[in-house]
Amino acid sequence: MQEKGITVKKEENFSEWFTQVINKAELADLRYNLKGFVVFRPWSVLVMEKIYDLFEEELQKNGHLPCYFPSLIPKENFEKEAEHVKGFTPEVFWVTKAADKELEQELALRPTSETAFYKMYSTWIRSWRDLPLKLYQRAQVWRYETKATRPFIRSREFYWIEAHDCFATKEEAEQQVLQDIETTRKVMEEKLGIPFLPLRRPEWDKFAGALYTIGSDSLMPDGKVVQQPSTHMLGQGFAKAFGIKFVDKKEKEKYVWQTCYGPAVSRITASLIAIHGDDSGLIWPFIVAPLQVIIVPIYDKETKQKVVDRCKEIKEKLNSLGIRAEVDLTEKTPGEKFYEWELKGVPIRIEIGIKEVDNGMLTVCLRDTKERIKLEQDDFEKIYEIGKEFDERLREKAKSWFDSRLESAKTLEDLKRILASKKIARAEFCSIDKEGEKCAEVIEKEYLASIRGVRHDIAEKPEGNCIVCGKKANYVVYIAKSY
Amino acid sequence: MQEKGITVKKEENFSEWFTQVINKAELADLRYNLKGFVVFRPWSVLVMEKIYDLFEEELQKNGHLPCYFPSLIPKENFEKEAEHVKGFTPEVFWVTKAADKELEQELALRPTSETAFYKMYSTWIRSWRDLPLKLYQRAQVWRYETKATRPFIRSREFYWIEAHDCFATKEEAEQQVLQDIETTRKVMEEKLGIPFLPLRRPEWDKFAGALYTIGSDSLMPDGKVVQQPSTHMLGQGFAKAFGIKFVDKKEKEKYVWQTCYGPAVSRITASLIAIHGDDSGLIWPFIVAPLQVIIVPIYDKETKQKVVDRCKEIKEKLNSLGIRAEVDLTEKTPGEKFYEWELKGVPIRIEIGIKEVDNGMLTVCLRDTKERIKLEQDDFEKIYEIGKEFDERLREKAKSWFDSRLESAKTLEDLKRILASKKIARAEFCSIDKEGEKCAEVIEKEYLASIRGVRHDIAEKPEGNCIVCGKKANYVVYIAKSY
Repeated sequence: MQEKGITVKKEENFSEWFTQVINKAELADLRYNLKGFVVFRPWSVLVMEKIYDLFEEELQKNGHLPCYFPSLIPKENFEKEAEHVKGFTPEVFWVTKAADKELEQELALRPTSETAFYKMYSTWIRSWRDLPLKLYQRAQVWRYETKATRPFIRSREFYWIEAHDCFATKEEAEQQVLQDIETTRKVMEEKLGIPFLPLRRPEWDKFAGALYTIGSDSLMPDGKVVQQPSTHMLGQGFAKAFGIKFVDKKEKEKYVWQTCYGPAVSRITASLIAIHGDDSGLIWPFIVAPLQVIIVPIYDKETKQKVVDRCKEIKEKLNSLGIRAEVDLTEKTPGEKFYEWELKGVPIRIEIGIKEVDNGMLTVCLRDTKERIKLEQDDFEKIYEIGKEFDERLREKAKSWFDSRLESAKTLEDLKRILASKKIARAEFCSIDKEGEKCAEVIEKEYLASIRGVRHDIAEKPEGNCIVCGKKANYVVYIAKSY
Repeated sequence: MQEKGITVKKEENFSEWFTQVINKAELADLRYNLKGFVVFRPWSVLVMEKIYDLFEEELQKNGHLPCYFPSLIPKENFEKEAEHVKGFTPEVFWVTKAADKELEQELALRPTSETAFYKMYSTWIRSWRDLPLKLYQRAQVWRYETKATRPFIRSREFYWIEAHDCFATKEEAEQQVLQDIETTRKVMEEKLGIPFLPLRRPEWDKFAGALYTIGSDSLMPDGKVVQQPSTHMLGQGFAKAFGIKFVDKKEKEKYVWQTCYGPAVSRITASLIAIHGDDSGLIWPFIVAPLQVIIVPIYDKETKQKVVDRCKEIKEKLNSLGIRAEVDLTEKTPGEKFYEWELKGVPIRIEIGIKEVDNGMLTVCLRDTKERIKLEQDDFEKIYEIGKEFDERLREKAKSWFDSRLESAKTLEDLKRILASKKIARAEFCSIDKEGEKCAEVIEKEYLASIRGVRHDIAEKPEGNCIVCGKKANYVVYIAKSY
């Protein structure tokens, strides 16, 4: 029988730690007999559903509406935008048969839905009155990944939201890109405590069919970044390919300007697990925890009834305040229960023994600091406050950890050392346009790292020369290993 | 340009009415270039999301937890249960290629997920301690339908929840079937006001691989029934095919007993549209309406500012009470606005002119009765009550309409007349086991109707002879045309 607890330290062997947490906390199962496909179990799905809610709330607040588009995209749509088809074709699963009949046209299982949405946009949009059009769907997409798959981080079917917006002007589209980054910040950083860098990707790493892409890089404990929500300025390329035109106020026909945005909920969960967890297992933020409070009764034969009744009463009171709370009534020992709920990352544990029944106090234990707090009887509203502080602590801890993992590299020697110490390097670089690709290839080949891009949130001015070729630097870039 | 309003009466030409409502209220679009696939637009998706919430809330309350299973099912899984594969193979879309490579094994795009879930259940379930196991997913499924497709009613990709439960005993599984019917009743009847009959399907019409199936039939205005959530007693067939075994308390190895349950949210929306709507268009129940209250300002140049300010203030107050309310600030005339929001089915309209600004009253118009009510200033909580009464009225109206559409047939002549008057017939019948299939075929062929099954909620005793063959009747069945 496998050991129940996590047997490695997160900082020492992140890869093994991550695998153990996923298995032992029952987040996902890789034993489904299809390579690269993951079964997501309730303990992660309950969290992902809450992350969906957070994003959908933000998106609706800023004028997006939900829709459901077909998962299957006829090949003829898929091939309309040349760059896009080139970028995605190597990753497409194709439906070619129905029952025992070959289909007349092969159907792509959507790897992303531009070519489904925009087909309809060309029908729906006629006039400036129809703009802006801002729609999203929560959906899964399928990509025949050739890179190594890891649950939550990269699998061949993953869970995301995709927003597809159309505007009358370039300026409005650029404003939308900023708003998308702000949505990412609000959900990822403010709500979930996941720090990230919004980076304008180099020309060779942008989304297939876009003018430019802003990716959000968050960091894993092993020093590799993962791309979190990205937003793409599509310009008018798709509009021209699909004929998405409108008549403006002066009765002139024009192409729309487009953006798209894609937070991958399953991958954000990877960062949640990796960043907040510790050597005892998961730590879910209070805001998305499947259970926010676990109540553990501590009794002997004589006190059992009283203790259990009190626990149930507390659960009811917390539930009535909208707090997700349960009593652990299994036959395990209190010690086993503590251990299990720590592994599973429940933010708050309330322990109730006969003493707590008699004096009416609550003993509250915090998952992150393992601190114990005494609460007055019925001071249940306080639990919300404790939850809020809990999330603030996680956020601040993650932030200062992330900040400590950014370091400037003046030379390639620096770069090597910084990457080896599991950090992201900040360096001056010749160009993120086509002509910089050669220097990027050197980094890729010799340091197994990539040019992640240029800060989009602040302006950083280079003062020296490119860290690779030594020519005048035009950009300050971030360099990291990545998933 | 097409006429804006609905140009036919629901009772006279339901099919055309349904098509017009879907197009004119912008619920869905059939112009996506793939036969049988529908694009669902925000005005229906916002409702479907709420229906999902209602079902998920009920399911979680009775012990189900959410998960996400892969959409693709390896052919070898799919073929494990003989009846199941026979039933579903004619409807499967197959993925055979990824990028330009033929796959080693064809993958079914799930038409339903028994063979995905149960593969894992055989891994997860070991002991009586692991039971019951009750999981569900919200997901879409794909079926290569050969019957005519209609948006919401039947399309080749549809949106549902599927729950898959395992128990130690047959009795528990049978209890689950009852609980599923109760879930259907709570959501469909209590919350959404959609009446239905829970019917045990005849042997020849049960789910492929089940011992028996309880379907829920709701009625369309044209006299055809649609199958709403069905629950299936699977027995131990799948458990044996997939090897889902557990060791019981006496250390004996046994197969589990299984049930599954599948509310199709897109199809429930079809019933919502069809049953509650009227000749002016949609009527959404207050509980799921995308907008519950539309506020229409009525002003001239002089009063505009005051009126608009008051409207915004009302919107804010309603929003702060959790009511979904908007102000219509477009440049249309008040008459055009009334017309449009009636078509779109918003339950409550508040009209604000300068008179309402001055006397602080609210004029509230109800979508269903078109009645006008005067409300005191700031009596905003009252809106909830009005909403609740609104839904009660819809429910009762639907119920009495449904009841009036059930009629007993003593003879085949009766049956013919009843079906022609757009009703469901109640009749005595020889058998719903194999031996009754011949009589069912007569009904099918000569009356284009089917034996929908036997009431599962009440016991009905036959007293005479089979309406078809004249032999002793063993069942009271319901007979209807169907989608």
